[in-house]
Amino acid sequence: MKKDYTFAFGGANTPGAVSEVHIQDHIPALEAILQDMTPGATIHTPGAAIHTPGPAALLVCDENTLPIARKIIGNAGEQAAAVCVLKSGEEEKNWASAEKILLAAKEAGLGRDGIFIAAGGGVLSDLTGFAASIYMRGARLCIVSTTLLGMVDAALGGKTGFDLFGAKNFAGTFFPAAQIYLPMESLTSLPPGEWKSGMAELIKTAVLDQDDKNEFFRLLESLNRDFPPGSFVPAFPPDFSRQLLEKQGEKLIDCIARSVALKGRIVEADPRETGTERALLNLGHTFGHALESLAGLGRLSHGEAVAWGMARSCDLGLALGLTPRDRAHSIIALLNSYGYETTAPHPLAGDTTAFLKALGGDKKKKAGKTRFIVPAAQGGQIVSPQDESLLRTIITGASNHNGE
Amino acid sequence: MKKDYTFAFGGANTPGAVSEVHIQDHIPALEAILQDMTPGATIHTPGAAIHTPGPAALLVCDENTLPIARKIIGNAGEQAAAVCVLKSGEEEKNWASAEKILLAAKEAGLGRDGIFIAAGGGVLSDLTGFAASIYMRGARLCIVSTTLLGMVDAALGGKTGFDLFGAKNFAGTFFPAAQIYLPMESLTSLPPGEWKSGMAELIKTAVLDQDDKNEFFRLLESLNRDFPPGSFVPAFPPDFSRQLLEKQGEKLIDCIARSVALKGRIVEADPRETGTERALLNLGHTFGHALESLAGLGRLSHGEAVAWGMARSCDLGLALGLTPRDRAHSIIALLNSYGYETTAPHPLAGDTTAFLKALGGDKKKKAGKTRFIVPAAQGGQIVSPQDESLLRTIITGASNHNGE
Repeated sequence: MKKDYTFAFGGANTPGAVSEVHIQDHIPALEAILQDMTPGATIHTPGAAIHTPGPAALLVCDENTLPIARKIIGNAGEQAAAVCVLKSGEEEKNWASAEKILLAAKEAGLGRDGIFIAAGGGVLSDLTGFAASIYMRGARLCIVSTTLLGMVDAALGGKTGFDLFGAKNFAGTFFPAAQIYLPMESLTSLPPGEWKSGMAELIKTAVLDQDDKNEFFRLLESLNRDFPPGSFVPAFPPDFSRQLLEKQGEKLIDCIARSVALKGRIVEADPRETGTERALLNLGHTFGHALESLAGLGRLSHGEAVAWGMARSCDLGLALGLTPRDRAHSIIALLNSYGYETTAPHPLAGDTTAFLKALGGDKKKKAGKTRFIVPAAQGGQIVSPQDESLLRTIITGASNHNGE
Repeated sequence: MKKDYTFAFGGANTPGAVSEVHIQDHIPALEAILQDMTPGATIHTPGAAIHTPGPAALLVCDENTLPIARKIIGNAGEQAAAVCVLKSGEEEKNWASAEKILLAAKEAGLGRDGIFIAAGGGVLSDLTGFAASIYMRGARLCIVSTTLLGMVDAALGGKTGFDLFGAKNFAGTFFPAAQIYLPMESLTSLPPGEWKSGMAELIKTAVLDQDDKNEFFRLLESLNRDFPPGSFVPAFPPDFSRQLLEKQGEKLIDCIARSVALKGRIVEADPRETGTERALLNLGHTFGHALESLAGLGRLSHGEAVAWGMARSCDLGLALGLTPRDRAHSIIALLNSYGYETTAPHPLAGDTTAFLKALGGDKKKKAGKTRFIVPAAQGGQIVSPQDESLLRTIITGASNHNGE
């Protein structure tokens, strides 16, 4: 099955910058990608001599996604696209990796109209997107997103970047990909940590998408019904990927499609996070990023940190009287059903003073105030509590919802 | 005297991104800058306790412009803005310098709405603009342009970047400054090399601005009348800055204002050089950049390379039948009257094969073709000659206009 969604990144604010999103079963072939990226170009495949009349392309992958990159190239041969292989992992999300991509692009002879194709998860697409955005002041970008987190978050919305001075995504740009492919096939080999990260973002999106029918949220409540309750994070089910895709594949695709549609709407309304719409996507992220930075980058999956952050956002929303009690409880119950850690203090959070300081260093600051998103009666709401003792209470669990 | 010009960078394509340009006698004070950058904010200066209710600011300068930076800060004191001092020179236009600015901004506590103020020439404003554009995915930028080249070129139009892999401005972004100040006062201490660079860009702009009356071009033909003909480049007149500003200050301001107006029109029509309008500003630059890269960065002033490149563009336009003979001669005569080297081959150009290769590596490439701008009957025209022997003829001077 194949679902194609098209949404215009930025809408009226950035005409011409349209991201096309393809949710599909299989990994796309290079020929298809180049044709989507260069409408009208003709690509000749085996038999005839291969030539690419369009601009040169660079395919960027990491050690984990090299097999996927090989599948993309397939019969087209290495003449059709140069390949740049990065090391895997968040610790590689730095300037040196971005420079490596830039050099590979230069050596491949890419011009300003050259095509960067990222085949990988969020780290890889953020890095490749950043390199593409500064290559000769901006080349062209395509993302083949191979992880659940990438599919529901990083690949969409044009955020690029890398870690600097110990801060996640400290440097970056807004640079939407022209073509985005979300192939289910790539999830069959997805490691546990990536599933944990992606599920947390799916839950976050479902919380923001909450309406009267609440269909997205209910889909997630039943998505893991073939596995023991609470087993997902602490005891990742063996053969999870295959089983989930076989038994609940349609449901997962439905979740991803809803996530894409929601994020598309939000990004169109607020492409550069200058308004308030896009900030909503940071639900759980202010607490989550602080936790990640204190735990040390890579100690927790992004999703585990965000899940814990969502639980704290529920606590904060409860304390401020903004989150209905029922809603906070159902969100935390959903997180618990997947086995995410939701209680405070977090064992890796360090001391409270350090945590408060880490909160202050987060990017989601406006006019010197740290902003949080809390679940509201519908969707989410931005708050900037100035009361440090309140935040201290939330972080240490003195307001623990479990004790209520 | 003070002339204020306001133009919208990108016009309909990037609403909201407006650059205000102030051509004025004096170096602006920090209070004025912050008020322009943050309309409505109140800055209290001496007497009362100083506080900046607006976002934090970072003032970036280099060793040469430190006195100008001190003048900007003036009475406001260091509490009002942190200062980051870079080393001077094109060889400092690298990632390490950009990272130094980013770190200083982080240490100064700048948020996403923080203000980067560049006080310097093109190298410094390109670097500061780049850092601002990727700081938390884009902070805010103000440029106090202190060189003629910066005033007529780098400060306007939103191009940022740095040199990488030996190529000028290989990495960068489009990121227009919100406020741009062009203070004549800063030109009084401008070194000879900077005058040479700026004059060539002024001449380039006048060529592009050429109309029936040809006023801008004629202004430049008389701007240097108080100095010996042809003396400007080979024998820079002693006390040139003071004499020029005293005797021809009004004329110079008129030239700068015309240059700003022309560039504003071009940038509005084509903010990201995706169309053809903006590419016109590269008149002389394809040949010029290749010459600079072969001569070694820093051996020639940018303007000397561009002036020589303009002469080659005249040759190319003549050979292709696109540049009227009278026009080519008057352009080359104007370049000669300032003492720019206009004959081919250039003594620093290296061998012809290396030069042709350097031409191919230039950013101004589209679909694998190197593009040149040649003077046309009015303004300029883009050409992509495929005949290597023609380019060889131009570079070696076999088509030398002087011999005609």
